[in-house]
Amino acid sequence: MMPGGELLYPSPQHQPATPPQQPHSTIITTATSELLEDETWVWSQIKAEARRDAESEPALASYLYSTILSHSSLERSLSFHLGNKLCSSTLLSTLLYDLFLNSFSTDPDLRSATVADLRAVRARDPACVSYSHCLLNYKGFLACQAHRIAHKLWIESRRPLALALHSRIADVFSVDIHPAAKIGKGILFDHATGVVVGETAVIGNNVSILHHVTLGGTGKSGGDRHPKISDGVLIGAGATILGNIKIGEGAKIGAGSVVLIDVPARTTAVGNPARLVGGKEKPSMHEDVPGESMDHTSFISEWSDYII
Amino acid sequence: MMPGGELLYPSPQHQPATPPQQPHSTIITTATSELLEDETWVWSQIKAEARRDAESEPALASYLYSTILSHSSLERSLSFHLGNKLCSSTLLSTLLYDLFLNSFSTDPDLRSATVADLRAVRARDPACVSYSHCLLNYKGFLACQAHRIAHKLWIESRRPLALALHSRIADVFSVDIHPAAKIGKGILFDHATGVVVGETAVIGNNVSILHHVTLGGTGKSGGDRHPKISDGVLIGAGATILGNIKIGEGAKIGAGSVVLIDVPARTTAVGNPARLVGGKEKPSMHEDVPGESMDHTSFISEWSDYII
Amino acid sequence: MMPGGELLYPSPQHQPATPPQQPHSTIITTATSELLEDETWVWSQIKAEARRDAESEPALASYLYSTILSHSSLERSLSFHLGNKLCSSTLLSTLLYDLFLNSFSTDPDLRSATVADLRAVRARDPACVSYSHCLLNYKGFLACQAHRIAHKLWIESRRPLALALHSRIADVFSVDIHPAAKIGKGILFDHATGVVVGETAVIGNNVSILHHVTLGGTGKSGGDRHPKISDGVLIGAGATILGNIKIGEGAKIGAGSVVLIDVPARTTAVGNPARLVGGKEKPSMHEDVPGESMDHTSFISEWSDYII
Amino acid sequence: MMPGGELLYPSPQHQPATPPQQPHSTIITTATSELLEDETWVWSQIKAEARRDAESEPALASYLYSTILSHSSLERSLSFHLGNKLCSSTLLSTLLYDLFLNSFSTDPDLRSATVADLRAVRARDPACVSYSHCLLNYKGFLACQAHRIAHKLWIESRRPLALALHSRIADVFSVDIHPAAKIGKGILFDHATGVVVGETAVIGNNVSILHHVTLGGTGKSGGDRHPKISDGVLIGAGATILGNIKIGEGAKIGAGSVVLIDVPARTTAVGNPARLVGGKEKPSMHEDVPGESMDHTSFISEWSDYII
Amino acid sequence: MMPGGELLYPSPQHQPATPPQQPHSTIITTATSELLEDETWVWSQIKAEARRDAESEPALASYLYSTILSHSSLERSLSFHLGNKLCSSTLLSTLLYDLFLNSFSTDPDLRSATVADLRAVRARDPACVSYSHCLLNYKGFLACQAHRIAHKLWIESRRPLALALHSRIADVFSVDIHPAAKIGKGILFDHATGVVVGETAVIGNNVSILHHVTLGGTGKSGGDRHPKISDGVLIGAGATILGNIKIGEGAKIGAGSVVLIDVPARTTAVGNPARLVGGKEKPSMHEDVPGESMDHTSFISEWSDYII
Amino acid sequence: MMPGGELLYPSPQHQPATPPQQPHSTIITTATSELLEDETWVWSQIKAEARRDAESEPALASYLYSTILSHSSLERSLSFHLGNKLCSSTLLSTLLYDLFLNSFSTDPDLRSATVADLRAVRARDPACVSYSHCLLNYKGFLACQAHRIAHKLWIESRRPLALALHSRIADVFSVDIHPAAKIGKGILFDHATGVVVGETAVIGNNVSILHHVTLGGTGKSGGDRHPKISDGVLIGAGATILGNIKIGEGAKIGAGSVVLIDVPARTTAVGNPARLVGGKEKPSMHEDVPGESMDHTSFISEWSDYII
Repeated sequence: MMPGGELLYPSPQHQPATPPQQPHSTIITTATSELLEDETWVWSQIKAEARRDAESEPALASYLYSTILSHSSLERSLSFHLGNKLCSSTLLSTLLYDLFLNSFSTDPDLRSATVADLRAVRARDPACVSYSHCLLNYKGFLACQAHRIAHKLWIESRRPLALALHSRIADVFSVDIHPAAKIGKGILFDHATGVVVGETAVIGNNVSILHHVTLGGTGKSGGDRHPKISDGVLIGAGATILGNIKIGEGAKIGAGSVVLIDVPARTTAVGNPARLVGGKEKPSMHEDVPGESMDHTSFISEWSDYII
Repeated sequence: MMPGGELLYPSPQHQPATPPQQPHSTIITTATSELLEDETWVWSQIKAEARRDAESEPALASYLYSTILSHSSLERSLSFHLGNKLCSSTLLSTLLYDLFLNSFSTDPDLRSATVADLRAVRARDPACVSYSHCLLNYKGFLACQAHRIAHKLWIESRRPLALALHSRIADVFSVDIHPAAKIGKGILFDHATGVVVGETAVIGNNVSILHHVTLGGTGKSGGDRHPKISDGVLIGAGATILGNIKIGEGAKIGAGSVVLIDVPARTTAVGNPARLVGGKEKPSMHEDVPGESMDHTSFISEWSDYII
Repeated sequence: MMPGGELLYPSPQHQPATPPQQPHSTIITTATSELLEDETWVWSQIKAEARRDAESEPALASYLYSTILSHSSLERSLSFHLGNKLCSSTLLSTLLYDLFLNSFSTDPDLRSATVADLRAVRARDPACVSYSHCLLNYKGFLACQAHRIAHKLWIESRRPLALALHSRIADVFSVDIHPAAKIGKGILFDHATGVVVGETAVIGNNVSILHHVTLGGTGKSGGDRHPKISDGVLIGAGATILGNIKIGEGAKIGAGSVVLIDVPARTTAVGNPARLVGGKEKPSMHEDVPGESMDHTSFISEWSDYII
Repeated sequence: MMPGGELLYPSPQHQPATPPQQPHSTIITTATSELLEDETWVWSQIKAEARRDAESEPALASYLYSTILSHSSLERSLSFHLGNKLCSSTLLSTLLYDLFLNSFSTDPDLRSATVADLRAVRARDPACVSYSHCLLNYKGFLACQAHRIAHKLWIESRRPLALALHSRIADVFSVDIHPAAKIGKGILFDHATGVVVGETAVIGNNVSILHHVTLGGTGKSGGDRHPKISDGVLIGAGATILGNIKIGEGAKIGAGSVVLIDVPARTTAVGNPARLVGGKEKPSMHEDVPGESMDHTSFISEWSDYII
Repeated sequence: MMPGGELLYPSPQHQPATPPQQPHSTIITTATSELLEDETWVWSQIKAEARRDAESEPALASYLYSTILSHSSLERSLSFHLGNKLCSSTLLSTLLYDLFLNSFSTDPDLRSATVADLRAVRARDPACVSYSHCLLNYKGFLACQAHRIAHKLWIESRRPLALALHSRIADVFSVDIHPAAKIGKGILFDHATGVVVGETAVIGNNVSILHHVTLGGTGKSGGDRHPKISDGVLIGAGATILGNIKIGEGAKIGAGSVVLIDVPARTTAVGNPARLVGGKEKPSMHEDVPGESMDHTSFISEWSDYII
Repeated sequence: MMPGGELLYPSPQHQPATPPQQPHSTIITTATSELLEDETWVWSQIKAEARRDAESEPALASYLYSTILSHSSLERSLSFHLGNKLCSSTLLSTLLYDLFLNSFSTDPDLRSATVADLRAVRARDPACVSYSHCLLNYKGFLACQAHRIAHKLWIESRRPLALALHSRIADVFSVDIHPAAKIGKGILFDHATGVVVGETAVIGNNVSILHHVTLGGTGKSGGDRHPKISDGVLIGAGATILGNIKIGEGAKIGAGSVVLIDVPARTTAVGNPARLVGGKEKPSMHEDVPGESMDHTSFISEWSDYII
């Protein structure tokens, strides 16, 4: 769990005189009862949105009823939608629906992660117009929810099923997250096509990852060989991060960067190979949590000194 | 047809005494009757190609009849093909077919854009052996045509349907173009996998964009935040262009570049971060229209001075 | 065919006094009878793995029986699996199954390539837990096998069918290999999403290629315009290699590199634009075959001198 | 067209003193403008019913929207529903939808027959709770509408397509009506399973036919060889009527009868072989129109004299 | 519930001196706990049969795992199988699966009826080789189980959904049972094609009904208008029973009969129109329960006196 | 095998002075080489018909290419067509196609039976306009060919698979033939809906059977309990034949008859219960082979003496 923001990002040089009054991520710190309340609230929002859309667009009403409005809970709606998206002629939708519904029903952590992700997408992506938009249409969101089921199967030692599900997610969404990879809550996989996350990778809470991002390994030997992404990190489009390295809390990785070494907290790495903005010895540090603020390009002014 | 480059892109050094009498993209300005003629001609070519292929390859004849030869017009063939490609168990092919056919039938601009794109692919991609090859098999072409329908829905305020269609295009073709993005005519999305085009992006006419190209935003605030790509631009594979910046007419973006600032007309930007070939102050300028000439690598000799 | 290792990688400076006792790639040098034996052995492994998994995971047993355990040979299993993965409403699974089975049955080279690829994936990817895992779930493996059929159709002048198959592979797996491209044996396409291989590209034996790799052309004129990848090469994630250039035997291309000129054998090229590690004049050379050793990052120590 | 009842069923012995004030079948005698009005009225009823049902039963709402509520007219709804019911892996729903919609749109007779059938089912079958119930669920109704399209194709000399459609109707609904058979309006095929109607059969207006009824031929020579069923006839379940014989207006055929000879108007034939109730010489005659009154069993009292 | 045999069939003339030691239908009289035990036992039999068949026939193993062996209970297996059989492009399998599973899970009566039917088919049909054979392949059995769900929906006033399900059963199995019809337990619908059971029909326990049997109404007025079939009745192939008449306990209806009046208990009615064997005044009575003994033709010797 | 005509129908009373010069069924008596020739000829006819139809009806061309014109032999075409007709979500088309093709390829008897049936339908049914019409559209023909595969599986002791196939045939075509039933060659199942043929039934050569015909058993004991239908028999629509009785060579069973006792050769049985035309003692005998002549109703004149 991600504690309050002031503990998360202790930035010695820029330590604010008083701790921030509002923690960065209230979702994650809320208690279970609040989460249930949250789940109910989000589901009621989704239903209301879908009802409004069904009324205004009869051509879509059938779709909205089958995916959302005919279901009694978010977990049923999501299980149905994922089952239909991920099924194939040899892995039937009913089997997947059953598997997903059973997982969501018995594991409140899965459900709270779903809610946190919905909130993250809605809050961070200005192109996301509603919760139902995210639930139905965001392949990164859907791939992440399906991955969580695959991960649950993996840690229950049901590996062949986890890998079969992994394969379907990679085929259908072009998102390739190894079922063993650990992923926190409040995640935004924006656009998501081409994301690759390796077996021993770890992704913290409130992380935002753009499309074509690779969290890759370094060779053919097994063991712990993939990146560890701390809370609040933002990784730009097309960034490639390789090896068992650590991307510190609240760090930012520029689009297209190739990162092969650790990146300290609250710093920005850009370029191929990636360098720290401000220099290796005394890198510039930022106050915000890029994984939430989604500020991709504030480093440009600094960086542009030595470009073009 | 687009005339020679020197008329199209008046580059300061070769500035003609009088401004060009003919706008950049004659395709767009041709009268309706010519477009209809063009449409008829392309469709007759496609039918002839399909007939020849069906005769030489019985195993494919059923496919060619169902997708092309049984249809009475290009718009019917394309609506059928897109409907079958983009349908799902919850968005039936008949619904999509109806939607597409209705859009193409009532909007001649959509049809002329389709014809211009078919011509662009055929002219610019040496691997494209026929118009029917493009119509049936080019995911970039198909994604672009479907996007145009989604865009039409978007500007008609049928946003939930536009977004549902957007989601299907992203799932099926791994091409993620926001329905609000404006795209001109004569477009080649070559290979296309992984292309991401954001909400406020604008793409001009006669542009060629390779796979994995991102026209992305800069953060979580809304508003105008994506690149503007002028006419005749060529964007190499894997290039990432971020923010509300302008890529000038006839500019060229090298493969793998990360572009964060404006690029002047007829110049080439390469690298991560991208620099102008020839230097910031007096960049080299080219005569041709890269979006049509598809010259990806002519800058190498210049660039290679400081590589390897 | 790839001869013994000592012939393959003649590295003048590091020439070993005695030829290596163990050739790099025993798979490729075995005779036909051995290959048949190999095929039988691999198939019996796959069956045993599937049987074990079916017993431990009843929810997956149906899938394992339909894809593997009900079949009498590897070629039937693979033809069935590919047929079901690649079919569409207009290209029926029975047609594809028939086409694939006929090709595999009559062409032992196709079968030996499949076996070599299975061994390559199993040996090089630590995340690959079994041969059946690769056969069922690796989109790169499946795309490559389907490409070999498309290539066979291409050289038999059945081009419309080859291109239709190419299109399905690109849609379903997001792997876009032109049917004319020549690919050797013992290939690992790891993760595979977004791989693009152009019409005149050639890939040797025992090559490993990560996701988002482009072997692209240089413009709109036809002819020989794509890279030639020699035996034993390793190409990191997101690398873009453009033009009719040669990547020498056992060379290594760093992740995210943009390569526009030849790379000598057993050297490493990194960066955008790519430079040789150790410098242009006297690049560092490695002993191993990166395509098999999968050592992505050993150059970092050297490289990191001038980064960050 | 079926004129007023008094002309239709001149029953000498029971001639009423005054002509009936209300004709039997107002639907058939209305003019075209009234039919259009009728169509509009029925469609508005169907929409209202579907809306009410969608509200009360969310699980069915998606179905009701896709089949009825998303459509702008009865002909679109019916074309969509039939296309989805009758399609197969080799006859795609979009092709059938297109064919059906085109037929209904261009042929008002087809549409008025549909409306007359809807009214007939609603009026005569006490188990029919609404028009939408008939439209969606009555296989006899659906088979009859699809037959009318097949018949239209037949008389346009598009016989292979007519026969392919015939085959799908026979497979899907177990209703086997030869496309050449002529069928009037206001028809109720109740339950419908197993109905067989031969090539040269003719069925008048306002006829009701129960399941397992055969209107069969007499051998292998071609020509006019099937029964002619006049207006207002009722044919009970399992009746077999063979040969080019005439069943007179308003006649009634008992369930399970085997009829090999003509049956006079307004008489009842029962048994195997069928005999006229009341005797061959002076059969009992009835006043009502059995095809509309649906009185199956009023003859029992008379008949039962010689049974059991 | 059907009490002991001696009470069920009080046949004054043939009253046995001592009551039968073994009741006719032990299934129905067992208590709830025994039924649960029964359910467990039948399910374990089905699993064992399927396991044996999967081992002996690899081509069928996938089917057997998906339909039976991957499920944890009879109700899950049956819900899955029915969902896949009855789904359509507009009524998805996941929706039906959910509906069926929910019904079976919450209603033990549905489950005990299923078990009683399985036992009935296995005991009475010599062509039924195993319980799994019945569960998977008997369309009469499957239609009956699906009808019970439709009936449950009907009495819960979810009529549109009940009728939609009714329609699917009629399309898929050619078995047309109105959702309002009441059906007991221990039912065998043998072959089943063409069975029609009307809205107000009632079928008791331990009844056997062959194919093409009609329990039909008598006209277009509503109300109670269909036959009432008592316990233990056997109805031969193609029999048509019309109107609100009573077929007494243990009665037998000959194949092809047309029955329009009541049939007393333990008597046999044959012919068109049906007569009682032995004559109206003093019909022959039988000792056995034809619905269980399945003796179709013992009356022939008697009957044949007046035939041929 | 059916020997020459003169031996087949030894009718003592009507023995012709000289044996018939032309045997009734030349198909069956031809040698194997002739059958192969026959197969080739029929297949070439089918291809020519399909080619003609594809040209005249573009909307059907895709269907004709996929089912007929893309195949290299009748057995491939038929296997493809049956595989697509009989597949389900749990029995995939590729599995069935493989099974069917393997059976037809290795068993010339199956193929010669198919050809004989095609000829029979074409010769006897005036509504059959071509061989391809029969191959594609006749559910009786298709059910019979699929039954032959099921029967082959049955006698090879692959009973679960035989029964699964039986179930699919019964669902899809409403034709229920037990896999153990033996069926000769040159069979016409006309219309076919509702046909039921029991486990121990035997059907000879050149038999014609109309729809709704039952060859049923007599109770719940196993053993030989179904009818034996000799060569050349014609069974009218809706006839029910029960028990281990013999229908003699060339006999005719009237529509709707219920037959419970043996019927001598070349006689006609009609009615419920069935009586011999001409009387039990000296029944009328006919010269022709009704199974081929298809004369359903010639007995009417005789019969009508005592009807109506």
